[in-house]
Amino acid sequence: MRYFEDIRAGDVIELGSVEVTREEVVAFASRYDPQPFHVDEEAAARSPFGGLIASGWHTAAMFMRLFVDGILTGSASLGSPGVEELRWLHPVRPGDVLTGRVRVLETRPSERNPTRGTVITESEALNQDGEVVMRMRARGFFGRRPT
Amino acid sequence: MRYFEDIRAGDVIELGSVEVTREEVVAFASRYDPQPFHVDEEAAARSPFGGLIASGWHTAAMFMRLFVDGILTGSASLGSPGVEELRWLHPVRPGDVLTGRVRVLETRPSERNPTRGTVITESEALNQDGEVVMRMRARGFFGRRPT
Repeated sequence: MRYFEDIRAGDVIELGSVEVTREEVVAFASRYDPQPFHVDEEAAARSPFGGLIASGWHTAAMFMRLFVDGILTGSASLGSPGVEELRWLHPVRPGDVLTGRVRVLETRPSERNPTRGTVITESEALNQDGEVVMRMRARGFFGRRPT
Repeated sequence: MRYFEDIRAGDVIELGSVEVTREEVVAFASRYDPQPFHVDEEAAARSPFGGLIASGWHTAAMFMRLFVDGILTGSASLGSPGVEELRWLHPVRPGDVLTGRVRVLETRPSERNPTRGTVITESEALNQDGEVVMRMRARGFFGRRPT
């Protein structure tokens, strides 16, 4: 079990990878973000993006799965109060393969609750060409190691 | 068609509503955020949340659908470069009914590109008890009205 104490500022953790499929791009966006350039091949071709691109929320969700598999599973994760500066920097297209990287910026024990602490991370999702497609700074709560 | 010029600082737009179902909470989280308190009823009951809660990314995605239906469809939306200060303020549970509200904070014509502008919004998702479950400040690009 990975506790708050096991996470240190400066840690860099490489996550796994995920392939972006056309089916999933369209399925996610049809339910949650049905803008033409996410769901309609022809409209997307005429848009400034020149073809179908994934919803930014889909990219965030795919990244989250890498984050859960690479860090949170087997940890004392207690959820997150939120995110600062979520940036979609480059279009994500069907066929892209995304990988994740997380840098721990700061760890801060709770002043109110001796059983938990906050971890502040900067995360990046990169495509197969090494382009950073998404960057965010986020907070997560983790339980402290029981004494 | 709603263009950049049709959106004004100070505008407040009430969006529609969406019911949060247990099936969708578990389906979304099983794919994108399989932490125990999102996918496992019993583990969730033992967690600090006291029961299943929706992934924050699922809440953001449900809000996005309300935003698309209420604002972006029939607009000259050109995507978004990102979000500042996304905050998950209150757990979202199966059975909740979420509504959305958007306030336009600022509109800014592009200095580089005369065909588009940026709109900065503050959005809230509220539950059936009027509690703000999510708040975010985001940017969106919109095409300008053709001359």
